[in-house]
Amino acid sequence: MEKFEDLGFSKVDYDREKRQGFPEVIYGEGKSIEQIHLIMSKLIEKHGRVMVTRVDKEKGQLLIEAFPLSKYDSVSSILLYGEPKQQFAGEIMVLCAGTSDLFVAEEAAITAEWMGCKVNRLYDVGVAGIDRLLAYRDQITTASVLIVVAGMEGALPSVVGGLVQRPVIAVPTSVGYGAHLQGLTPLLAMLSSCASGMSVVNIDNGFGAAYQATLILKLASEGVNNEITIS
Amino acid sequence: MEKFEDLGFSKVDYDREKRQGFPEVIYGEGKSIEQIHLIMSKLIEKHGRVMVTRVDKEKGQLLIEAFPLSKYDSVSSILLYGEPKQQFAGEIMVLCAGTSDLFVAEEAAITAEWMGCKVNRLYDVGVAGIDRLLAYRDQITTASVLIVVAGMEGALPSVVGGLVQRPVIAVPTSVGYGAHLQGLTPLLAMLSSCASGMSVVNIDNGFGAAYQATLILKLASEGVNNEITIS
Amino acid sequence: MEKFEDLGFSKVDYDREKRQGFPEVIYGEGKSIEQIHLIMSKLIEKHGRVMVTRVDKEKGQLLIEAFPLSKYDSVSSILLYGEPKQQFAGEIMVLCAGTSDLFVAEEAAITAEWMGCKVNRLYDVGVAGIDRLLAYRDQITTASVLIVVAGMEGALPSVVGGLVQRPVIAVPTSVGYGAHLQGLTPLLAMLSSCASGMSVVNIDNGFGAAYQATLILKLASEGVNNEITIS
Amino acid sequence: MEKFEDLGFSKVDYDREKRQGFPEVIYGEGKSIEQIHLIMSKLIEKHGRVMVTRVDKEKGQLLIEAFPLSKYDSVSSILLYGEPKQQFAGEIMVLCAGTSDLFVAEEAAITAEWMGCKVNRLYDVGVAGIDRLLAYRDQITTASVLIVVAGMEGALPSVVGGLVQRPVIAVPTSVGYGAHLQGLTPLLAMLSSCASGMSVVNIDNGFGAAYQATLILKLASEGVNNEITIS
Amino acid sequence: MEKFEDLGFSKVDYDREKRQGFPEVIYGEGKSIEQIHLIMSKLIEKHGRVMVTRVDKEKGQLLIEAFPLSKYDSVSSILLYGEPKQQFAGEIMVLCAGTSDLFVAEEAAITAEWMGCKVNRLYDVGVAGIDRLLAYRDQITTASVLIVVAGMEGALPSVVGGLVQRPVIAVPTSVGYGAHLQGLTPLLAMLSSCASGMSVVNIDNGFGAAYQATLILKLASEGVNNEITIS
Amino acid sequence: MEKFEDLGFSKVDYDREKRQGFPEVIYGEGKSIEQIHLIMSKLIEKHGRVMVTRVDKEKGQLLIEAFPLSKYDSVSSILLYGEPKQQFAGEIMVLCAGTSDLFVAEEAAITAEWMGCKVNRLYDVGVAGIDRLLAYRDQITTASVLIVVAGMEGALPSVVGGLVQRPVIAVPTSVGYGAHLQGLTPLLAMLSSCASGMSVVNIDNGFGAAYQATLILKLASEGVNNEITIS
Amino acid sequence: MEKFEDLGFSKVDYDREKRQGFPEVIYGEGKSIEQIHLIMSKLIEKHGRVMVTRVDKEKGQLLIEAFPLSKYDSVSSILLYGEPKQQFAGEIMVLCAGTSDLFVAEEAAITAEWMGCKVNRLYDVGVAGIDRLLAYRDQITTASVLIVVAGMEGALPSVVGGLVQRPVIAVPTSVGYGAHLQGLTPLLAMLSSCASGMSVVNIDNGFGAAYQATLILKLASEGVNNEITIS
Amino acid sequence: MEKFEDLGFSKVDYDREKRQGFPEVIYGEGKSIEQIHLIMSKLIEKHGRVMVTRVDKEKGQLLIEAFPLSKYDSVSSILLYGEPKQQFAGEIMVLCAGTSDLFVAEEAAITAEWMGCKVNRLYDVGVAGIDRLLAYRDQITTASVLIVVAGMEGALPSVVGGLVQRPVIAVPTSVGYGAHLQGLTPLLAMLSSCASGMSVVNIDNGFGAAYQATLILKLASEGVNNEITIS
Repeated sequence: MEKFEDLGFSKVDYDREKRQGFPEVIYGEGKSIEQIHLIMSKLIEKHGRVMVTRVDKEKGQLLIEAFPLSKYDSVSSILLYGEPKQQFAGEIMVLCAGTSDLFVAEEAAITAEWMGCKVNRLYDVGVAGIDRLLAYRDQITTASVLIVVAGMEGALPSVVGGLVQRPVIAVPTSVGYGAHLQGLTPLLAMLSSCASGMSVVNIDNGFGAAYQATLILKLASEGVNNEITIS
Repeated sequence: MEKFEDLGFSKVDYDREKRQGFPEVIYGEGKSIEQIHLIMSKLIEKHGRVMVTRVDKEKGQLLIEAFPLSKYDSVSSILLYGEPKQQFAGEIMVLCAGTSDLFVAEEAAITAEWMGCKVNRLYDVGVAGIDRLLAYRDQITTASVLIVVAGMEGALPSVVGGLVQRPVIAVPTSVGYGAHLQGLTPLLAMLSSCASGMSVVNIDNGFGAAYQATLILKLASEGVNNEITIS
Repeated sequence: MEKFEDLGFSKVDYDREKRQGFPEVIYGEGKSIEQIHLIMSKLIEKHGRVMVTRVDKEKGQLLIEAFPLSKYDSVSSILLYGEPKQQFAGEIMVLCAGTSDLFVAEEAAITAEWMGCKVNRLYDVGVAGIDRLLAYRDQITTASVLIVVAGMEGALPSVVGGLVQRPVIAVPTSVGYGAHLQGLTPLLAMLSSCASGMSVVNIDNGFGAAYQATLILKLASEGVNNEITIS
Repeated sequence: MEKFEDLGFSKVDYDREKRQGFPEVIYGEGKSIEQIHLIMSKLIEKHGRVMVTRVDKEKGQLLIEAFPLSKYDSVSSILLYGEPKQQFAGEIMVLCAGTSDLFVAEEAAITAEWMGCKVNRLYDVGVAGIDRLLAYRDQITTASVLIVVAGMEGALPSVVGGLVQRPVIAVPTSVGYGAHLQGLTPLLAMLSSCASGMSVVNIDNGFGAAYQATLILKLASEGVNNEITIS
Repeated sequence: MEKFEDLGFSKVDYDREKRQGFPEVIYGEGKSIEQIHLIMSKLIEKHGRVMVTRVDKEKGQLLIEAFPLSKYDSVSSILLYGEPKQQFAGEIMVLCAGTSDLFVAEEAAITAEWMGCKVNRLYDVGVAGIDRLLAYRDQITTASVLIVVAGMEGALPSVVGGLVQRPVIAVPTSVGYGAHLQGLTPLLAMLSSCASGMSVVNIDNGFGAAYQATLILKLASEGVNNEITIS
Repeated sequence: MEKFEDLGFSKVDYDREKRQGFPEVIYGEGKSIEQIHLIMSKLIEKHGRVMVTRVDKEKGQLLIEAFPLSKYDSVSSILLYGEPKQQFAGEIMVLCAGTSDLFVAEEAAITAEWMGCKVNRLYDVGVAGIDRLLAYRDQITTASVLIVVAGMEGALPSVVGGLVQRPVIAVPTSVGYGAHLQGLTPLLAMLSSCASGMSVVNIDNGFGAAYQATLILKLASEGVNNEITIS
Repeated sequence: MEKFEDLGFSKVDYDREKRQGFPEVIYGEGKSIEQIHLIMSKLIEKHGRVMVTRVDKEKGQLLIEAFPLSKYDSVSSILLYGEPKQQFAGEIMVLCAGTSDLFVAEEAAITAEWMGCKVNRLYDVGVAGIDRLLAYRDQITTASVLIVVAGMEGALPSVVGGLVQRPVIAVPTSVGYGAHLQGLTPLLAMLSSCASGMSVVNIDNGFGAAYQATLILKLASEGVNNEITIS
Repeated sequence: MEKFEDLGFSKVDYDREKRQGFPEVIYGEGKSIEQIHLIMSKLIEKHGRVMVTRVDKEKGQLLIEAFPLSKYDSVSSILLYGEPKQQFAGEIMVLCAGTSDLFVAEEAAITAEWMGCKVNRLYDVGVAGIDRLLAYRDQITTASVLIVVAGMEGALPSVVGGLVQRPVIAVPTSVGYGAHLQGLTPLLAMLSSCASGMSVVNIDNGFGAAYQATLILKLASEGVNNEITIS
């Protein structure tokens, strides 16, 4: 099989599933409806399923008409076609600090579900009301991987990171104003965090966080090289 | 009495105590030992007491020799001469996130004490170990004013701000590296905080935080305009 | 009573009045009209009153129709329902530098009034016409707490801070252009101020300044821990 | 057992091993030799082992004299006392772009080894000589987790991220000049990467990358909640 | 002949062809349709040909009506009138990293063609799928000059720069979000590149890259000062 | 006479006095003692006088030994040789906000004096003690041109600008810390000032301010083109 | 006469003409049509004339209807009512680098004319075609004050500054893209200029440049303190 | 022959001469004397010649002792061993704006010479004295490629770019202060230049500019693909 197909404006990467574990996902922003349509058709033909992120409502409507089997979620701006081909053990918890961060949290949650993960949502648990967060401490400590979404000062991942012994992926959001600098402030704050075991993805990049979280569950599901653990 | 005296390089502000409640404090950085010596002499003559901040160890040693009644604290880099003239009711709690933030926390604590406040110190209670902070919840909620010092991601004031009904003054520190940007990151994060009732001072400005905290206790001690509270 | 209620997209914080002295205030920006409506209903049910900030005119109109007892102020973009439950002694002065800063100054003034404070407004007293400011020196020096709102170079709080012995809370605004950097310049300038006893909140955050000012009057009204003042 | 001990300047966190899987690690920068000595003693007493990062050569020499069983590595500036208590299955590959990035790569490698991971080092494989990197493609694709360290333009993680189906943790370094902005440029570039499954830690934070990589292997070693994988 | 003509709002530079090798090109952004029309007329009169860049669709439509012999390309936003007067030996390769970068890549390609160069396009060969790029290694190494267009993290030019012995001109694009900072991140990353023989132009400046690439082919075509090469 | 002389590393500009009104001034920073020595000799030979700015104490000492008729001022770091050739009518007032700004204020004052202006110094009149400034209002309003030097928040020029009908040249200084950003904050604040008739020079550029102030007095002294004023 | 009048939202400054030489000018941006109307009426009543800057076309149309004697210029967005009361000797030259900078250049030119200055316009003389600029060298060297407007890299003021012995006021514009940073780049470049006798105003602030230029001509016209020039 | 050799800390790239036209050059900064020594030995063994950049004086002295046939230049901080293997036709002109930029200009000049180019130096021709530059117009217009080095406001490349029809490579330097931002200001200014045919390299990167300039002469020397030029 050819590894990629050249559409002129795009070289569709058919090799990605073998190389990276999952078929290519289409980033919808900045692509025309015609471009998305053509790449979707190619990917559905090869893989039987496809996900498109950052699809605004207008494009979403048009694509659902073109692909009646697809589903569009307006909170996360994601268009889905097809079902997960596998289901990974473990659970990803997606936390978010405030109601306004929902669009990013849902991008993470829906991506992870579509890639084959079980997701537990815990929303509106910002650090300025720490009791709300701690009320869920048991659930938090038993999650396999945690995606923590926060705008404003971006403090939530640091608190969560200190409660668990599992990987935490922090996602800053563009929700805030003034000194928040469109998300640069929580991004830099998360990178400066004193909590261990935490890494960070780009502002509003719920997709990227879910992708890495899924790779972690995939690694855990597949086992790590048959080596023996001594403890 | 003359309101100020012109020393050429400086106009010493004798009116400040009457106008602002406290005599002029000398900011030591960038001033020569001769300049500090002369201004100290003038202020001691007028007010019988003086505080100098940002005095490095070498200058501190020289000034103690010149003013044997003065005391120098090497953690906060503060030089003190004389005692508080009044003692305000209430208590200022100074919290800091990590051991490396001590130099700022102590600048705040010693300033507040010298201005006439009772200070309660609670150090090394960063948010990545939230249990350490919450172990002191009772003390925290009974403080009159809270000064919260933090470097790294600067998340501590948001958590504290959500626990109390008293004013919180946040102080970012220059302790951190990389994305921390010499303290700009916690500064901006604190300004973007979702906690209510909180304001912020400049990076490492423990003095400024203590000054405002003291003005709050002073206002509370002096009463507010004899008006009647309806509740 | 339950401490919070989980609406899925939001966990409404019923405990906040007990914990922080005032019921939860709704930040309207980025929330849908349905979300605001539901949270308002819940908070009115529990507390009999609610405030919503950052409500644009269109949403304001719809919410007034839904809650006929509410009032909407288009300068500050605030929606109010109910009256203050207490009235604090003392007076908050709100100053602003220019006519264009009014929207922030009014957010501060209306918030403080709704929380139970007496407010004195002094508008358009920018430092480039210092005589206008100094004409009100008596009023300025007798205020209990001062909120100083300024865009452009943000110099007004420094001048005011040098005139008084009461806490000054500075609010930079997004009013300006070019080197003003959407308010970052006055924000940083206020943080770098040489005036003592002053702290700063986020750009355009009139609400936050009023909240802290009210906590100060509340502390003064309630007294500080029964301790004795020696002076 | 007490959860932490208050040394005044520090509250040593004895609970961390239980809560987070590993005992507290000491961040040496900004701490005095006396402070490090005291915290080390406490941690050795409780856990029998301790790691200190960011220890300069002078402090390293003094601490080795005080703790003759400890070892100091001058490339990574890490001081170690004791051995790993467990050994995780799988392998972490640490790649770096250039010779000057070694100090960060070694901080990652030594941390991971001390926490119980097998580490494979692949150094000086920057993208401007892509053949050197691709010569190791087999090793790269079989690693369990990849830590990719790069200064300059920070492009290496994007290329590596496109080759594998395992989590990639990118570490920007402060190695570069001019437009490199002390590491901010590769940090922002890595966050903007088009590669999937990649997250980022702070500039020069080899420790943080290794910590998260180890948590991933730990999760894989311990299994994920007994759930069944369908594929 | 006069060297320039003063239209009041503009001084049309007739001397540029002699001085710089090509007639003035009109930068369409920020100019009114009347201004463009007048300058176009003057330049067509003098040189028989003209190119206008950054012409939006509405202006493009109006100008085509006014100049029926002109052609408008909506991807690159370029309006062309007339044909190249010369054809240079050699070949410029234009590469771009992703489908969304096309508008910049085409600005470069069409500019170079109109100035008299042969162009080879290689699109959607971003580094996260390095095999797609390397599949074209032969074409890449035989190009005379390479223009490499990339948004996101801007890594493509570094990889290409390491494959060739010809000049590489890197063009960052404004395609990305969050930490991408509207193109500043790939701009700074390209400037920090470890690849030799590479220089950079402004964000989205496909025109500028093509202009310099053409000057290089022109120099090669015209020979370099009749000197003798010793090798 | 030749317009300039080529020393290889430097082309000394003998034409500058005719073209720009004053002979070339040597910027000492980054030049070796040999380079300064040679350029000084050339300029003394042509003009009989020379000024060198940014000369540190060590270089100053060496140059005084080499040119015994020269004078070195350690506050402003200026080396002077020769006297003014003309004396302009009018008076430049140099104000500074704090004692630490003296080195910049003196660079301005000494430059202006050496270029032939009468200078009136008014130091340590920062806006946080507005009465000290206003005590000199008469002197301020009668100055011909005002140079206003300030670090910290840089508010002084705005206040001064509002008091006078003469040109104000603002000079931000690098004196401050944290949010002051090495002088960027007062620089941007001064540029954002609401005062009219004010312009700004680079951080610490007392020389540049004095140069422009002198050109203004020179213009006034020489008259403006013999035209008639109607009023 | 009262020095100012309090309109509530604004304190109109009637004293400004006496204090600063010119009546208050209204900055139109961010003010409602009602606010501008009321302040205009007050100022016309007191001074018989008024200028309003930053008036968009819609507001301009409405104000012309309200004040039929006023004139609106759509290039500079200035509304004028009344004539200059005096005419100053000398000439201000306004130069701009490109056609797109016209809106700023005209703001400067029209302001200066309205304040009583003769203005000479020299437009589209950017440094990349240095011959166009030098063709006007005679006019440039005989101007009394020069306002130099430039976007892009902002190099024009440096070249002009090196040609004259008169004050140069540089105005950066927001015309550019990418690395131009909405005008920050030419602003910083102008401040870093190696030309002497030059100062800078805010981005797009043609008004401010003209105001200072006029104050310079006013000073020259009024003479400088009757002192005697020795030359 | 092996393509590279793995020294552990470094993979020496023996293939680079074949792939990129020139053997690997060692970037000396951040490498230990032992590392440089070992890589130098390997490269001399393979290629008979080597260049090391950014070598400080102390390292330079030690390396000359170790390699007595090498030469060290303290202005450019370059260490050379061996001679050019080829000589390209054409001439590179290196211009710099000021005396303080010499260290960058010489890095460019010496690199180009060592790579086989003829170099013409034109130093201290900053735009604030435009006549000095224009005095060399003939030489400037006949150069094959121009490297233009400038600190401060970075305006020189724009002027030069407008005079020639040859490629211009601009090099910003870190020479300046305040608003110059360690070279970021001229870097961004050069990228925003209105001159055509110009590209930019990193701050102080004289080496990079020379490398690209040499590749251009190499291309011209080798001819461009045997294609026929129609003109």
